[in-house]
Amino acid sequence: MEYPSKLIESAVEEIAKLPGIGKKTALRLALHLLKQEKEEVLSLAESLVDLRENTRYCNSCFNISDADSCDICTSHKRDNAVICVVEDTRDVMAIENTSQYFGLYHVLGGVIMPIDGIGPTDLTIDALVSRVSASQGEIKEIILALPATMEGDTTSFYITKKLKTLGVKVTSIARGVPVGSELEYTDEITLGRSIMNRQ
Amino acid sequence: MEYPSKLIESAVEEIAKLPGIGKKTALRLALHLLKQEKEEVLSLAESLVDLRENTRYCNSCFNISDADSCDICTSHKRDNAVICVVEDTRDVMAIENTSQYFGLYHVLGGVIMPIDGIGPTDLTIDALVSRVSASQGEIKEIILALPATMEGDTTSFYITKKLKTLGVKVTSIARGVPVGSELEYTDEITLGRSIMNRQ
Repeated sequence: MEYPSKLIESAVEEIAKLPGIGKKTALRLALHLLKQEKEEVLSLAESLVDLRENTRYCNSCFNISDADSCDICTSHKRDNAVICVVEDTRDVMAIENTSQYFGLYHVLGGVIMPIDGIGPTDLTIDALVSRVSASQGEIKEIILALPATMEGDTTSFYITKKLKTLGVKVTSIARGVPVGSELEYTDEITLGRSIMNRQ
Repeated sequence: MEYPSKLIESAVEEIAKLPGIGKKTALRLALHLLKQEKEEVLSLAESLVDLRENTRYCNSCFNISDADSCDICTSHKRDNAVICVVEDTRDVMAIENTSQYFGLYHVLGGVIMPIDGIGPTDLTIDALVSRVSASQGEIKEIILALPATMEGDTTSFYITKKLKTLGVKVTSIARGVPVGSELEYTDEITLGRSIMNRQ
């Protein structure tokens, strides 16, 4: 595609680097920004730079946080004996939205993906192991809530193995047919597992 | 939704102002940017600000341009007697991609949309009229290539009326059944018009 100016070309190229945004959408967004007030565009740009430069992570659970310890880890209302291990912040938000979980979290920052060069040392698995052993038995249960993919399962398996000697109970969230969905539209693997793991 | 930090909340809110991007996608993009190198994020932010602050428009056709006159208006290979009137830059790019048009353009910057408060004076219609009358007969034909919507038709009608006294030929791009598409899947209005306007 030939762009009418170098400025728009470089903006489109930068925007199209974002995941799920192609060149056509990037052009639409760039033309939209051109029509906005200067302050609007400046405030978007500043918030992105600010996010990248000043975001901090909780020292113990590695969730995104405004301070050295996040609100969940410092809360007196949470159960310190249970830790839910998740892939990223979005999973924490999703579980918090259910209002059904009152323990703490541990954010791995990804799952083991050899194909993308992400190994166990790129995640916060060692920190999880230290956290459990440093608690001297205070942490009773680790709930693995990782994606039901090959990578997620590999990571769950790796963590389970690492935690074996520490005497902590390791569980996984239940897999099965989602509430409200029809059996005939459920994929075979989920349906098969839900029969195998019947309660 | 409760965000884990104020920085991510404000970034999500800024990103979600973009058209077609909701809060979930905005959060995904923000988390993606958090994982990128600082330089990547800076270069995205800079290109957006640069685009908004330094983009120039061609003095005669109002297309986005690096200089006061755009490459198309200054080209010796283009036919100065024909001007194609379009809504925005994307339409210029689409028509240029066909390699079938060798005249000049006139970018309106939108179409008349009373519901959004966009009237004729917000567009470059007056500049088009001056351009035609200043050419002293050099411009022979105006091709209207505006969207086939009520707003596009209103704008075409308004422009046609404005140009009536200037003795210039005003045409519209052909509407009809797209090449390669089946009659049975064409909407009734297009099909009806294509029979009415048979060649």
